[in-house]
Amino acid sequence: MRNGVESAAPEAHRYRLVSRAARSVRSVVRVGQRVTFGGAALAVCAGPCSVESREQMETTAAAVAKAGANVLRGGAFKPRTSPYAFQGLGEEGLRYLREAADRCGLAVVTEVLDPRDVELVVRYADMLQIGTRNMQNFPLLREVAAAPKPVLLKRGIAATIDEWLMAAEHIVAGGNAQVVLCERGIRGFDPHTRNMLDLAAVPVVQSLTHLPVIVDPSHGTGVRALVAPMTLAAVAAGADGVIVEVHPHPANAYSDGAQSLTPADFAELMEGLALVAAAIGRPLPERAAAAA
Amino acid sequence: MRNGVESAAPEAHRYRLVSRAARSVRSVVRVGQRVTFGGAALAVCAGPCSVESREQMETTAAAVAKAGANVLRGGAFKPRTSPYAFQGLGEEGLRYLREAADRCGLAVVTEVLDPRDVELVVRYADMLQIGTRNMQNFPLLREVAAAPKPVLLKRGIAATIDEWLMAAEHIVAGGNAQVVLCERGIRGFDPHTRNMLDLAAVPVVQSLTHLPVIVDPSHGTGVRALVAPMTLAAVAAGADGVIVEVHPHPANAYSDGAQSLTPADFAELMEGLALVAAAIGRPLPERAAAAA
Amino acid sequence: MRNGVESAAPEAHRYRLVSRAARSVRSVVRVGQRVTFGGAALAVCAGPCSVESREQMETTAAAVAKAGANVLRGGAFKPRTSPYAFQGLGEEGLRYLREAADRCGLAVVTEVLDPRDVELVVRYADMLQIGTRNMQNFPLLREVAAAPKPVLLKRGIAATIDEWLMAAEHIVAGGNAQVVLCERGIRGFDPHTRNMLDLAAVPVVQSLTHLPVIVDPSHGTGVRALVAPMTLAAVAAGADGVIVEVHPHPANAYSDGAQSLTPADFAELMEGLALVAAAIGRPLPERAAAAA
Amino acid sequence: MRNGVESAAPEAHRYRLVSRAARSVRSVVRVGQRVTFGGAALAVCAGPCSVESREQMETTAAAVAKAGANVLRGGAFKPRTSPYAFQGLGEEGLRYLREAADRCGLAVVTEVLDPRDVELVVRYADMLQIGTRNMQNFPLLREVAAAPKPVLLKRGIAATIDEWLMAAEHIVAGGNAQVVLCERGIRGFDPHTRNMLDLAAVPVVQSLTHLPVIVDPSHGTGVRALVAPMTLAAVAAGADGVIVEVHPHPANAYSDGAQSLTPADFAELMEGLALVAAAIGRPLPERAAAAA
Repeated sequence: MRNGVESAAPEAHRYRLVSRAARSVRSVVRVGQRVTFGGAALAVCAGPCSVESREQMETTAAAVAKAGANVLRGGAFKPRTSPYAFQGLGEEGLRYLREAADRCGLAVVTEVLDPRDVELVVRYADMLQIGTRNMQNFPLLREVAAAPKPVLLKRGIAATIDEWLMAAEHIVAGGNAQVVLCERGIRGFDPHTRNMLDLAAVPVVQSLTHLPVIVDPSHGTGVRALVAPMTLAAVAAGADGVIVEVHPHPANAYSDGAQSLTPADFAELMEGLALVAAAIGRPLPERAAAAA
Repeated sequence: MRNGVESAAPEAHRYRLVSRAARSVRSVVRVGQRVTFGGAALAVCAGPCSVESREQMETTAAAVAKAGANVLRGGAFKPRTSPYAFQGLGEEGLRYLREAADRCGLAVVTEVLDPRDVELVVRYADMLQIGTRNMQNFPLLREVAAAPKPVLLKRGIAATIDEWLMAAEHIVAGGNAQVVLCERGIRGFDPHTRNMLDLAAVPVVQSLTHLPVIVDPSHGTGVRALVAPMTLAAVAAGADGVIVEVHPHPANAYSDGAQSLTPADFAELMEGLALVAAAIGRPLPERAAAAA
Repeated sequence: MRNGVESAAPEAHRYRLVSRAARSVRSVVRVGQRVTFGGAALAVCAGPCSVESREQMETTAAAVAKAGANVLRGGAFKPRTSPYAFQGLGEEGLRYLREAADRCGLAVVTEVLDPRDVELVVRYADMLQIGTRNMQNFPLLREVAAAPKPVLLKRGIAATIDEWLMAAEHIVAGGNAQVVLCERGIRGFDPHTRNMLDLAAVPVVQSLTHLPVIVDPSHGTGVRALVAPMTLAAVAAGADGVIVEVHPHPANAYSDGAQSLTPADFAELMEGLALVAAAIGRPLPERAAAAA
Repeated sequence: MRNGVESAAPEAHRYRLVSRAARSVRSVVRVGQRVTFGGAALAVCAGPCSVESREQMETTAAAVAKAGANVLRGGAFKPRTSPYAFQGLGEEGLRYLREAADRCGLAVVTEVLDPRDVELVVRYADMLQIGTRNMQNFPLLREVAAAPKPVLLKRGIAATIDEWLMAAEHIVAGGNAQVVLCERGIRGFDPHTRNMLDLAAVPVVQSLTHLPVIVDPSHGTGVRALVAPMTLAAVAAGADGVIVEVHPHPANAYSDGAQSLTPADFAELMEGLALVAAAIGRPLPERAAAAA
């Protein structure tokens, strides 16, 4: 007997657990004590690309909480194209991230790169991010499937929507139903942007799966000036939230400075976002306790 | 002496007249008696892919005017991938389009394919559309540059933003400064959509040129259910308007039925659009006189 | 009654006359007195991007004929991204091209951009080229379909293979069965090349149509050093010929200098090509009479 | 002090050790006792997508060795889009692969997916394959960088050439200079092929790095009938070898049947390949001892 033979069993190649047919209602994924993805309110994740220092994280967390974010992002393990670029602070970074978030009443999302690090990251984070380069890193998907924390699954840089949902299926089939999808731009050909943000993926995904889907306009464009318009557009298109890079001093950022907002930019964006969110009937997140 | 030698004159390969540096304020393009593109108010173009009959146009024009569109679209000369598909009604179609628009106080935009038809189309239309397949049809660009009507220049299906602006430069350098750009989706790899709608192109283009830019969510997605969310997203991203396919009976449309809204869909979309437009501080078009 | 309604007649959207099912043997397209595309021997087209002067054409024609080409290429009407770049010499260029080719026993292929120029170009050329930007310029396809000369139909820059064959169907259905296809690179994302040369398109096309197919490694890569390896690869993949840019002084070329071979480069390429062609059982063209 | 800050140190983002500037001669990578990649002779890897059984491997190994391959491929750990598809036999598969290869005097290349499996795979394989989905799986790159076996690094499905060379730089900088690159097709838009094989990447890569580069025409096209022409084209373009899927009964293959050659197809391909290789002055591999 054979399991999973391609030619003999085409249904082996369709998603099941993540499909809309599998659940009559949309999934709401709870992150930390107070945050939800996929409910009426939007989720707003903000923070630097890389965790660089305790001070950077404290400043950023206070600023983004004040402006209305409810999740703090920041990378302690960084997937870097170059081996000579900053690779992240590791556990020290996780600690700074956690402390800063706790002080401001924020939840924490951070990327895990190595299946052997999942246990460590679980101790500090409320949500485990699978980055675009690892969307089909199946040993890693298997580890986060076994972890007691929700997963933010970014779309691979040239993944079809079906491949992306199949990666989610790996996690859900592995035992972790708490998956949130994140569109973050795909490979494009125009040099004015770093990636091509595929916003139509948001309603397409919502027609195919019950899982929540958010948008990363920072990696999705790579250009600071495009982050605000694409954040508004993402929410207007129906996204369940956004994840935005914010750095106190973008010009000095260890990574992704060109696409990072300043705290002031972010606060201004949140004001505009409140209006657009209201226009489509979705509230912004409740203010974090400490930020109120 | 040589003109325009590539190696000797790199500045020959940059846009000049359309660049933001060339004009201190954004261009406002006037179409017909009452419509503007690029002012505070949005422009909303709606109508069928192909003009099929007088009745179809009368019904559609009345419906879209009532819902709040201010420009009627419809193709009388159709660029069709297959030589065996419906090629359009030609001048008869232009007549139906004009009459229906006039009855409802709408302006008319329609595509011209052949440089030899520009004179004819000018007699019926308020705005000449250059379709995606003709973005770099230079003889055609030269003819519309000499025409006394504004031009709607769609982005080529795999055009870079610089190539697109250069095509606009051909028209403006040829004598017609009344150019509106239209993002309509580029070639993508995902089978869930017909094209990949590049909404980030809207703010990118606005940073590079003073010309207005609108979005076509119908061709940009090819899927009826995606038209409404992508229309809202386009306006949230800052587009100066949209162009949407509406057909009284999409299932019977001669072309593009799968991406056409019904009049009822369109009316519902316009209600949502009014809220999003208000959220970003842009009014919908004034109601057409006859529709009021 | 309706003609060509999409929904009602899906067969309207398939190619018929160009499909392999339509002809039991491969088409051989005769160009000028002595050249064939699609027979056992390869066709080798060479020459500058733009016709610049009588001297340039004489020098180039003599060199490429001596090296073994049998068709002279050169543009008299140039489709240029920028309105400020060199637009071609027009009829004067056609004359230089014809005279140089005649002196060396070569056939002539040249691009026509405007339906109103087809009659003029027919008087000078043995083969009418439809460039990548005009693959779906249907009025132009209609004119060359009515012309008494074979057509070289380049693939659109992001055309699917089916769209390309449908463009050929427009020409054949319009009355001209003498069509040769040309793969010339599609839009890619890597900055090391100008386009992405899709060599697999050669055997794909040969499985779908009876028409000959050649390859343009010059536009297909945009880089001189890549032209020779990709020419050999094209022929190894089964292409019926190639079209290569050769300029006596690439550094001074009015256009496409970076991808043009010198006559010496081209002669060396032809030596290598003879070996690869022999390895797959296809002779190079017979030497042009005057070049022998 | 900061290490690898993007803005402050652009040179952190260039490859060094893999660049041509770093070595005056091309690298020759030795695999097993008798195989080289990057020398005069081509390397020819062949075998099934998945290791399915001892019999399958014995049959395939004997056939491909007889036809002239010198490396046996086969997957024991399979990265599968669907969690419900066959995931590979694991160590049992490695054993079948090793035994079959040894019996026929072939070297073994096989994919490793999980950093925790590198040690195991090293015990069975002569060369560790990093698949397209893992090109930027940095923890995995770090493990193979520390392994005492050469690495076959496939290009990511939408990786730029610079990103690919940077992934190689991660391995070389980590201590393992024995890296061979493999072009295997990138994401394309045409439904006639599974991927878009970018053969121009071969000479581009050879201009940038001293590392050898081979081509995978099986994944690169996804279509059996295209494998032979693209193998010949790859070698004509200058590739240092190929890796081809061969299965005794493609219709029953657990994976990739549609792109697998039969042993008879493969033997015929090798005859054609011998002629093209000779035409460009590169011998086929010496026959494996046991196959002679």
